[in-house]
Amino acid sequence: MFAERLTRLGTETAFAVSQEAAALKAKGKVIFPFHLGDINIRTPDNIIAAAHKALLDGKTGYCSNAGIVELRDALAFDINATHGTRYSADNIAIQPGGKPVIGKFIMTLMNPGDEVLYPNPGYPIYESMIEFHGGVGLPYSYREVDGQYRLDVESLEKSITPRTRLLIYNDLHNPSGAESTPEEMQQIAEIVRKYNLYVLCDEAYFDMRYEGKSRSLVSLPDMVERCVILYTFSKRFAMTGWRLGAAIGPKSIIDWIAKLNLNDESCTAHFIQHAAIEGLTGDQAGVRQIVQTLKARRDTAVDRLNSIPGIKCLKPQATFYLFPNATEAMAIKGISDYEKFRRDVLHTTGVSFCTRLHFGRALPGENQRYLRFAYSGIDMAMIEEGLGRFKAYMES
Amino acid sequence: MFAERLTRLGTETAFAVSQEAAALKAKGKVIFPFHLGDINIRTPDNIIAAAHKALLDGKTGYCSNAGIVELRDALAFDINATHGTRYSADNIAIQPGGKPVIGKFIMTLMNPGDEVLYPNPGYPIYESMIEFHGGVGLPYSYREVDGQYRLDVESLEKSITPRTRLLIYNDLHNPSGAESTPEEMQQIAEIVRKYNLYVLCDEAYFDMRYEGKSRSLVSLPDMVERCVILYTFSKRFAMTGWRLGAAIGPKSIIDWIAKLNLNDESCTAHFIQHAAIEGLTGDQAGVRQIVQTLKARRDTAVDRLNSIPGIKCLKPQATFYLFPNATEAMAIKGISDYEKFRRDVLHTTGVSFCTRLHFGRALPGENQRYLRFAYSGIDMAMIEEGLGRFKAYMES
Repeated sequence: MFAERLTRLGTETAFAVSQEAAALKAKGKVIFPFHLGDINIRTPDNIIAAAHKALLDGKTGYCSNAGIVELRDALAFDINATHGTRYSADNIAIQPGGKPVIGKFIMTLMNPGDEVLYPNPGYPIYESMIEFHGGVGLPYSYREVDGQYRLDVESLEKSITPRTRLLIYNDLHNPSGAESTPEEMQQIAEIVRKYNLYVLCDEAYFDMRYEGKSRSLVSLPDMVERCVILYTFSKRFAMTGWRLGAAIGPKSIIDWIAKLNLNDESCTAHFIQHAAIEGLTGDQAGVRQIVQTLKARRDTAVDRLNSIPGIKCLKPQATFYLFPNATEAMAIKGISDYEKFRRDVLHTTGVSFCTRLHFGRALPGENQRYLRFAYSGIDMAMIEEGLGRFKAYMES
Repeated sequence: MFAERLTRLGTETAFAVSQEAAALKAKGKVIFPFHLGDINIRTPDNIIAAAHKALLDGKTGYCSNAGIVELRDALAFDINATHGTRYSADNIAIQPGGKPVIGKFIMTLMNPGDEVLYPNPGYPIYESMIEFHGGVGLPYSYREVDGQYRLDVESLEKSITPRTRLLIYNDLHNPSGAESTPEEMQQIAEIVRKYNLYVLCDEAYFDMRYEGKSRSLVSLPDMVERCVILYTFSKRFAMTGWRLGAAIGPKSIIDWIAKLNLNDESCTAHFIQHAAIEGLTGDQAGVRQIVQTLKARRDTAVDRLNSIPGIKCLKPQATFYLFPNATEAMAIKGISDYEKFRRDVLHTTGVSFCTRLHFGRALPGENQRYLRFAYSGIDMAMIEEGLGRFKAYMES
C-alpha cells in the first residue's frame, strides 16, 4: 500500500528523547531539558508588534512564491554586509523554515544514485533527505585536535568518487559547535572547485555567536556560484515556531527552488514576512538580549560540565550546543551503551540530553563517547541545578 | 547540473496571467482581477486577535510535527459534524496550507510508474506533482449535461489499468464549480472499491457554499479507510496568506505524512494554529460575512456574464469560480486561440481571467471553449464595471 521511498525516510531521533522526557514530566518528575534546540526566550516585542500590524493591514492574502520583495531586499542587504557578497532579491527564495531548504536543494541538484557528502555526527535530516530522494550519503567526520573539533578534510576528500556531486557543509556545527579555521575553509573551497561540487551551506547558527566573527564559504573565490545558503530566522530572532527561513544562492538554482515552493506550499505566510523585515531592520535590542542570555548560559553550562568527573567540555564560540566528551564518565559508571547511559542519567537525575548517536551512526573505529547538551531551551537556574544533579550522580 | 526530475515539474500557469495583469496595472491600466483564487476580504478580527494573543503568550517555539493536539481535536470535531465520521486528533496532520497535502499524499502512496486519476480541467498542481514524483497521470474530464457540469465517470472507469493506484477527486471543483450528485458519488465509491484505489479528496471548497449542503466521499461505506481529505483554512476563514491546512485520513497514512512534515518543515507555525482554534470554535459572524459577500458577488457576476453575447454561464452552488462557455463569443470575434482571446479582452477592457487551458491540456475531441472567472478577489463595483466593459467589447 505504501510507497517504497518511505522505507528510506529518516527522522529526528531527538524527538523520541523529547517524548520520553515529556512522559516523565507528566508523571511529576522534574526534567532539565538539554535535549532539544528550541529557544525558551520569547520573540522580541517589536517583531510581534510588526506581525500584528501586518495582520491588521490585511497582509493575509497570498504573496509571491519566492517571498515578498521587501523582505528579500532586506535579507540580501543583511547577508551582503556579513558575507561580502552582492546578492539581490533574485538570489533569495523565502521558505517556511530553514529546514525545507535541505530537501529542496537536494531535489534541485541530486539525481538518484548521486553521492552527497554530509557530516556525521550531524543534523539527521541531511541523511534522511539524501536517501529519501534516492541519493547515496557519504558521511564525513570530525576529530578532536588540540582542544578543538576539526572537520576531517583528508578523509572527506578520500571518499569522493566520480559520482559525488554535492557537499553539505554545516560550519558552526550542530551538534559539536565546531568551526572551520580560515585554512580549513580554504581547503574545503579547493575541494569544491577540484571536484566540481555544489554546496549546501547550512548557516543556521551564523549569528548565534559570542566571540569572534562568523565566516562563510561563499566569501571565498568562485564559491558564490556553487553554494546555496540555508538561512533561518529561527535562532537569531527566537522565531523557531514561526517557521521562516530562506534559500540564498545563484539565481538559476533559486528559480527552481521557488518553483518547488509554488508546487509545495504556494508561499510562506505573508504577514510573518513583514514581521521579519522588522527583525532585520528594526530595533536590535531584543536580538542582542537573546545572544547575551545564551552566552551567560553557555559559560555556566561549560563550567559546570567540566566540574563533573569524567566529563570534558570544549567551549564553542558559536551555536547553542555543547558536545562534551563523556568517555571517562561512562567508563566510571561501567556503562558502554549510549542509550543505557542517557536513560540512567535521565531517570536518576531528570537531566535530559542527546548523545552522539542521535546525530548519525557511529563510524568505524570511533572510540570516544560524546553527549550533546543544548542550552537554548533551559533557564540559568535549571542549568545550575540540573548539572549539579548530574555531578552528584557521577560522584555517587 | 540540475536534477532530471525538474524537467517533470509543472506550475500554476495562472500566475503568468497575474504577472501580465500586474504589469499592465503598473503602466496605469485599470485591471479587473478575475484570474486568481485569492480572497480580498480580511481575516475575521477574532482570528487576528487570537493570533496576537498566542504570540504574546509565547506560542513562538516549535510544536508537534503533526500539529498541536488542541487544534487537531477541534478540527476532528468540526469535520465529524459535517462528514458523519469519527476522526480523532490521530487522524490529522496539520500542514502549512492545503496544497502540501497533494505532494505528501503522492509521496506516501505512489511509486514511480503508478497511475493516478486526476481531473482535467483541474488544479494544475495535481498533474505536476504526479509527474514530478515519477507517476503517470490519467486525466478524466467533465461534461455539460442538462445544464450542469458532470464528471465523466464512464470514461474515468475505462481508463483504469492494473497500474492505477490513486484517484484525485476534487468535488466542488476548481475551475468549473461542478458537484457530484449523490448517485455520481456512489458510482465513484464503487469504482474505488472495485479497483482498490486510494483517494485524495480535495475538499478545499467544502464550506464555500451558498445553497444546499456539501457531501463528502468519506461519508460513504468503506471510504473513510481509503480517503485522505485535503482540508484548508484558506477559504472558509479568508486565511489564504496564513498558510494553514491539514491532511485528514487513516492513522497509518497520517503517521507517514506527519513524518514527512518532520523532514520537510518540522511543523506548521505554532501561534497560527492557536488562531485557527478560534476560527473553528469562536464567534462565526466573520465566517458568515465572508460567505454572504461571496454569494452576492456570484449572483451579480453570473447575471452579468449571461447578459454578454456569446457567453453562457451556469450558477454553481459552491466554490468561488465561474466557468462560462465562451464558444460562441470566440466565434463572434473570429478568434479560435484561447490565449489570443484572453489577451485581446485583457488589453482592450482590463478584464483579466483564466481560460480552460490554465487547468490542463485540451482533451481529444474537446470542441467547447471555457473561461474561468474567480470572484473572490474583486469587489462588487469592480465586477459590475468589468463585466460591463466585457459586454461592450463583445457588442462592439
